[in-house]
Amino acid sequence: MSEGEEMLIVQKYGGTSVADLEKIRNVARRVARYRDEGHDLVVVVSAMAGETDRLLSLAHEITPEPSPRELDMLVSTGEQVTASLLAITLQTMGYPAEALLGYQIPILTNELFTRARIQDIKTERLKAILSQGKVAVVAGFQGVTENGDITTLGRGGSDTTAVALAAALKADLCEIFTDVEGVYTADPRIVAKARKIPKLSYEEMLELASAGAKVLEIRAVEFAMVYKVPIHVRSTFSEAPGTIITEEDEDMEKVLVSGVTYNRNEARISLYGVPDVPGVAAKIFSPIAERGILVDMIIQTARTDGKADLTFTVPRTNLREALKIIEEVAREIGAERVEGDENIAKVSIVGAGMRTHSGVASKMFETLAKHGVNIMMISTSEIKVSCVIEEKYTELAVRALHEAFGLDIPPEEEK
Amino acid sequence: MSEGEEMLIVQKYGGTSVADLEKIRNVARRVARYRDEGHDLVVVVSAMAGETDRLLSLAHEITPEPSPRELDMLVSTGEQVTASLLAITLQTMGYPAEALLGYQIPILTNELFTRARIQDIKTERLKAILSQGKVAVVAGFQGVTENGDITTLGRGGSDTTAVALAAALKADLCEIFTDVEGVYTADPRIVAKARKIPKLSYEEMLELASAGAKVLEIRAVEFAMVYKVPIHVRSTFSEAPGTIITEEDEDMEKVLVSGVTYNRNEARISLYGVPDVPGVAAKIFSPIAERGILVDMIIQTARTDGKADLTFTVPRTNLREALKIIEEVAREIGAERVEGDENIAKVSIVGAGMRTHSGVASKMFETLAKHGVNIMMISTSEIKVSCVIEEKYTELAVRALHEAFGLDIPPEEEK
Repeated sequence: MSEGEEMLIVQKYGGTSVADLEKIRNVARRVARYRDEGHDLVVVVSAMAGETDRLLSLAHEITPEPSPRELDMLVSTGEQVTASLLAITLQTMGYPAEALLGYQIPILTNELFTRARIQDIKTERLKAILSQGKVAVVAGFQGVTENGDITTLGRGGSDTTAVALAAALKADLCEIFTDVEGVYTADPRIVAKARKIPKLSYEEMLELASAGAKVLEIRAVEFAMVYKVPIHVRSTFSEAPGTIITEEDEDMEKVLVSGVTYNRNEARISLYGVPDVPGVAAKIFSPIAERGILVDMIIQTARTDGKADLTFTVPRTNLREALKIIEEVAREIGAERVEGDENIAKVSIVGAGMRTHSGVASKMFETLAKHGVNIMMISTSEIKVSCVIEEKYTELAVRALHEAFGLDIPPEEEK
Repeated sequence: MSEGEEMLIVQKYGGTSVADLEKIRNVARRVARYRDEGHDLVVVVSAMAGETDRLLSLAHEITPEPSPRELDMLVSTGEQVTASLLAITLQTMGYPAEALLGYQIPILTNELFTRARIQDIKTERLKAILSQGKVAVVAGFQGVTENGDITTLGRGGSDTTAVALAAALKADLCEIFTDVEGVYTADPRIVAKARKIPKLSYEEMLELASAGAKVLEIRAVEFAMVYKVPIHVRSTFSEAPGTIITEEDEDMEKVLVSGVTYNRNEARISLYGVPDVPGVAAKIFSPIAERGILVDMIIQTARTDGKADLTFTVPRTNLREALKIIEEVAREIGAERVEGDENIAKVSIVGAGMRTHSGVASKMFETLAKHGVNIMMISTSEIKVSCVIEEKYTELAVRALHEAFGLDIPPEEEK
């Protein structure tokens, strides 16, 4: 935030930032400071920490599969409560504020309850509130269908609400306040020397998020990228600047690797001795896709006997179901053997600099080899390299890569 | 409910009836039984017992005077949660259901947040749901302004929601399910021989409610009276018939006194030696009214010295404030002395039969005198007599009147 400039800012405060009335008061104090500086503010809030889970478990105590429409009506109360309480707190402090629900703005979505997509946001009411000098406090995570039914945007949906509002309002900045200080070069619980990354491109953040970094929801980043909304991820509990996520610039290209991430939520399925004939891949993956199971990485290895070995990863929670399907397919197509493995991890390095620098991937492989970590699978994108390894090596691999790519050492330009 | 006849019924379940998931399941079972009998059902629910108070206390922890608009947004989540959970429970039991909020119907109100008045109810969506063979589960207590803001109807507002929906839908019956079996001849905690009243007129119920009976909200009864909605007040926890509240009929006129009630929430203020000149009453009561303090009973006694003594009652919670005002007025008009008394109670007898029978009031006074209970103030309506007495005599007076008017003895027509 540049000094003295009056901006329109959308802020989002997560569940831990509004966990109780004292924390809500802290949020209100911060909002008040921004108002004192002359900024217009739209504040998006999550449910108080634990509340969404409490509501979900009430519904799931009734049935494992509650109707999505009523489930959304139920869980959306969490954000409704926080928005009301924050608005009341602001008013009490002498800062006019108005709480708004998804249907009141409205934030129009499709009818995919529990994971609705935003289709349109009307900005008239928000703009009217801002022009009256009020803070607009918006219940995150929720939208409304044309029919007036409440929808929710899926886990982490409040991030999406904030970014979407920032896009619709053409805000100068979208600040995501959370319980960590920003995006780190690696998980600080694993790498003691992990550092906060000052600046990332949307693409890097997308790759980091899909590779396991949990700071920001992928959909929110996608939205920000499409509408070019600058995001500032920072801590509710400190004044330190966090991580700015914005369009790629020259500075970024200088950084070879921005961060190292890991993901332990996947499992591996291997199918040995697959007849190497056309159409066999479809036979294997169609029934998996039909069940809505997301396949992440796929490797096919041709053998000398004209057959092939096929290995792929699925979310760990879907392993059992996927194995059942694959065992049936294996019998059908005459494959030799099926194997499932939960004890894997995916370690990734992400950096915009990879576009212009070669040798990053091979340096990753060498580093892992040097530490005795066997690589089972590899996948790459323009700005990311991921390796599937044995789960027990996760911490070792993350630390080794963090050091190897010079992330332990603070760059000179940081004070 | 007559056997075999298919009806449109609006049911309302109070907070204790939906206090937890097991109780919600019980409600769902009852609703299912009505559906099996072929009735169309609109079910209005309150917040789970304790939830409204929990939400209110959150807001009041922030400030003693939270903004009414945000307060309504906050507390309305209580009913939203119950409506969702009941709809999910019904669906799980195989009974199609749809939960609806005030704004979705919509139930249009004025903008008097926290005590809004219903102005219009659209019935198209409700009728569509019913015609699809679904149960409409409605969040009680809440409405919406033209502007789309959530309002609430004041304490006990779910009763009003139910009666108003019954009126709008021209329902055959409005059943109010609560934690007592109906309206009693007296508070069963005080009078062991108190009996359930099988039938009451709207007027009697109104007088009973305003005299202290807490079973039904006054506004709901007024609504029912205007739109001639028959109400059945009964217990969620039993199958016993409760109390039917309907238009006055011949049977009712035979009953001299239907019930005895008491109210310990008032306080008395006496102003002695008031100069008996025109305009003095206005000088006394205008500043009280300006503060929104409701004066219930007023007695003025002329003295031989040309002055007068004035006694009136106010809600006990307003006594201190009212005394302060009156002491100032007393100085101004030159009254002799002001006295406040919290230790009073109002005991009332109510009965449609009073219209055609004389001597009811004098029998009440005699009964109280016989038991040594001094009467401080008296007020009467067509079908009610109220006496203010010392609070310590409350139970004695209620029991004595219950016996004196023959309410201890079950009438012959009851089985």
